[in-house]
Amino acid sequence: MTNPIQTEILHRVAEVFDKQIPFHNLLGLDIKRYDIDGVEVTINMKAELIGNIHQQILHGGVTATVLDVVGGLTAFSGIVASRDNWSIEELQNRIQTLGTIDLRIDYLRPGRGNIFTGSGTVIRAGNRVSVCRMELHNEHGDHIAFGTGTYMVG
Amino acid sequence: MTNPIQTEILHRVAEVFDKQIPFHNLLGLDIKRYDIDGVEVTINMKAELIGNIHQQILHGGVTATVLDVVGGLTAFSGIVASRDNWSIEELQNRIQTLGTIDLRIDYLRPGRGNIFTGSGTVIRAGNRVSVCRMELHNEHGDHIAFGTGTYMVG
Amino acid sequence: MTNPIQTEILHRVAEVFDKQIPFHNLLGLDIKRYDIDGVEVTINMKAELIGNIHQQILHGGVTATVLDVVGGLTAFSGIVASRDNWSIEELQNRIQTLGTIDLRIDYLRPGRGNIFTGSGTVIRAGNRVSVCRMELHNEHGDHIAFGTGTYMVG
Amino acid sequence: MTNPIQTEILHRVAEVFDKQIPFHNLLGLDIKRYDIDGVEVTINMKAELIGNIHQQILHGGVTATVLDVVGGLTAFSGIVASRDNWSIEELQNRIQTLGTIDLRIDYLRPGRGNIFTGSGTVIRAGNRVSVCRMELHNEHGDHIAFGTGTYMVG
Repeated sequence: MTNPIQTEILHRVAEVFDKQIPFHNLLGLDIKRYDIDGVEVTINMKAELIGNIHQQILHGGVTATVLDVVGGLTAFSGIVASRDNWSIEELQNRIQTLGTIDLRIDYLRPGRGNIFTGSGTVIRAGNRVSVCRMELHNEHGDHIAFGTGTYMVG
Repeated sequence: MTNPIQTEILHRVAEVFDKQIPFHNLLGLDIKRYDIDGVEVTINMKAELIGNIHQQILHGGVTATVLDVVGGLTAFSGIVASRDNWSIEELQNRIQTLGTIDLRIDYLRPGRGNIFTGSGTVIRAGNRVSVCRMELHNEHGDHIAFGTGTYMVG
Repeated sequence: MTNPIQTEILHRVAEVFDKQIPFHNLLGLDIKRYDIDGVEVTINMKAELIGNIHQQILHGGVTATVLDVVGGLTAFSGIVASRDNWSIEELQNRIQTLGTIDLRIDYLRPGRGNIFTGSGTVIRAGNRVSVCRMELHNEHGDHIAFGTGTYMVG
Repeated sequence: MTNPIQTEILHRVAEVFDKQIPFHNLLGLDIKRYDIDGVEVTINMKAELIGNIHQQILHGGVTATVLDVVGGLTAFSGIVASRDNWSIEELQNRIQTLGTIDLRIDYLRPGRGNIFTGSGTVIRAGNRVSVCRMELHNEHGDHIAFGTGTYMVG
């Protein structure tokens, strides 16, 4: 179902987002899985990510960061999946224009836990603009937050 | 116009948000001003905050973080301003229940600059829920992002 | 699972929303089902609801209206379901304070079809504020729009 | 500052939105002014627009409709203003692809009043996607609602 160029670009993008984005490194954000079906991004709780010292919970900005990264990667995998005759160059151009237009976060529960996992789906797939919905759960499956984001993809 | 209890609580909250929130320290977020009229939060560009290595711009998650902090502090100063007979205890209870319900970020321009400043205003003041609008500018006055947030304040 | 008071209040509210709200009558909005598990609201396409004469599609304001009504009713059924010892008077007070704080609509596809159905779920249940997600489909199951709304419920 | 083609297209679009959109006629929506600087849309209170019979206030769906129309027209006038060498045909193509991607409404006050006026500004101007902020006031200048919308403009 996935051709070598699709596999290759997703692999490269996962590498960059996992290891070469300074802010992802600062937070400790991991791209656990990234393929044509979507992305799984995790972050481990650590003292520096706390936003409320009494409750020892994740800062809302960390939640927003993870969900935004998930949304962008989800939108891009939708673009990759939308055609099977992309060239690597075309897809590299696309990833460079990828950007968040707007983002809504719904905070559902305090961010308690040790490992937080974000995932997402494309709800509107376009050649220029895609809209995604994202979710963040902790390791117990508690639903911490929802996101909805509109992304420029071309 | 501001009574000593109002001044005192805003001073205490500014201290906590400026120095004692681990994630604010990790990012280098500064509470420059916090009074009954609102808040000014700044962040200096540094390598760790970069989200796009080619363009050397602020990660969208940093923008979301600053705007969320601005929104929460703006909502709380609105609560402090809403009565002149608060006790310190009442306001301390209020700050502990302060939380973001939902947040929308509109990314207007790439986050280029050296110093980013966030500010906000209350657009719906309630005893339980407040809605704020926030803005982020760089040191040239370029408008980087808008935020709209709904906050639990009681 | 549902006690007589819960059944009674949901029945009364459905009657009011189905027959006594002038704007619902103007649009032809029907409350098809309303119970403790949620609500189903439908609207039949008619010439007056068209927003684009070339494409003969539903006006985005109709979509927003249906999703807002669905969200409010979903939030209220969540309140009704949250306790089994409500009095009718308490719930009547609650329905009178029900109000939309903010609403996001994601328009996914042009509003083509003959019958549009809206449904929703509570994603954050609170005693004061609830957050719901809503969906609008046409009679072919095409997904027309998503909504996310924050409601004052107490 | 405005050339004849810009003036002509805005005049034509205002005519269509004022008189030929069935849902605008059903509600009684008026395009009071539409030029290169923006739009003013008004709606007079009438019994059919009521959403709460006890409070006799505007239905939230009417508010959403007016703000969405204002946002779309604001985004389009931004496109018209962005170049001074448009042909009529190019702009007619643009108006046909105009569509709302997502919309946030912040309800600030109950919709009390006799005449409601909506206006807006472009906050992100793009060749493909524009983001606008909109406001609704009553005849006393009370601020009823804010809107934020992302529009496909090309």
